Amino acid sequence: MREALALAREHMLAGEGGPFGAVLVQDGRVIARGWNRVTSAWHPTAHAEVECLRAAGRALRRFSFAGCELYSSCEPCPMCLAACHWARLDRIYFAASRDDAAAAGFDDALLYRELARADGSTLLPRVPLLTTEGAEVFRCWREKTDKITY
Amino acid sequence: MREALALAREHMLAGEGGPFGAVLVQDGRVIARGWNRVTSAWHPTAHAEVECLRAAGRALRRFSFAGCELYSSCEPCPMCLAACHWARLDRIYFAASRDDAAAAGFDDALLYRELARADGSTLLPRVPLLTTEGAEVFRCWREKTDKITY
Repeated sequence: MREALALAREHMLAGEGGPFGAVLVQDGRVIARGWNRVTSAWHPTAHAEVECLRAAGRALRRFSFAGCELYSSCEPCPMCLAACHWARLDRIYFAASRDDAAAAGFDDALLYRELARADGSTLLPRVPLLTTEGAEVFRCWREKTDKITY
Repeated sequence: MREALALAREHMLAGEGGPFGAVLVQDGRVIARGWNRVTSAWHPTAHAEVECLRAAGRALRRFSFAGCELYSSCEPCPMCLAACHWARLDRIYFAASRDDAAAAGFDDALLYRELARADGSTLLPRVPLLTTEGAEVFRCWREKTDKITY
């Protein structure tokens, strides 16, 4: 966790993005590191946790990290928490909270509230369109015999 | 939306990942395209919407896409919905629903339920650690005079 916090501080001071760092660990060994690069890399999704998971994919050459634990300098935002679910992590440790992030001007706490009522989201309008054709693509997927599930 | 659906089908059949495609549009013009590459790129976060937002960052050379609308072949999962929030999109159109995705073996609906009770998540244990040091990093951020907010 001290390394995640050091990454957060170091790369924030270097002007790469917000004050966030993350480290992925397996069996006590560091697999990958990440830090926020949103404003320097023009990636709204380049949060520390996502960057760390991307680095882990390159290092491990797989897309599922069961058996790994993430140390994040801050409680993951909903995007990053869901990313950790998709990555099949065993556990997340975090230092600062979503409320600490909110107090520093980040939307984490707002997004948690918004996701909790995702069906009635008012911040970002969501509109169904071509719903039958959309479901049809999944029929193709179910029938695909050589698919790799994840 | 027809292009998003075509991307979903084309790249699924090519074996690149799940059946998902997305297109970002500004003033009726396509800015960026994305499709699921989770299993081929070893990126658990390489969902169509995230890939599309990353391509948009490269194309527009900025990290905020206000004024843009996303067309996605499927209702975005919580990770992608939060990513769209961070990208400051105006609107999301989607074809298939989270329930269509769930019926095809994807965790979207499960993740929505999980995020709705994020404080008591049982799928993925989350543990606070070094909380004082974590909050301290945000104090540095608040005091940083040359920061770029996002």
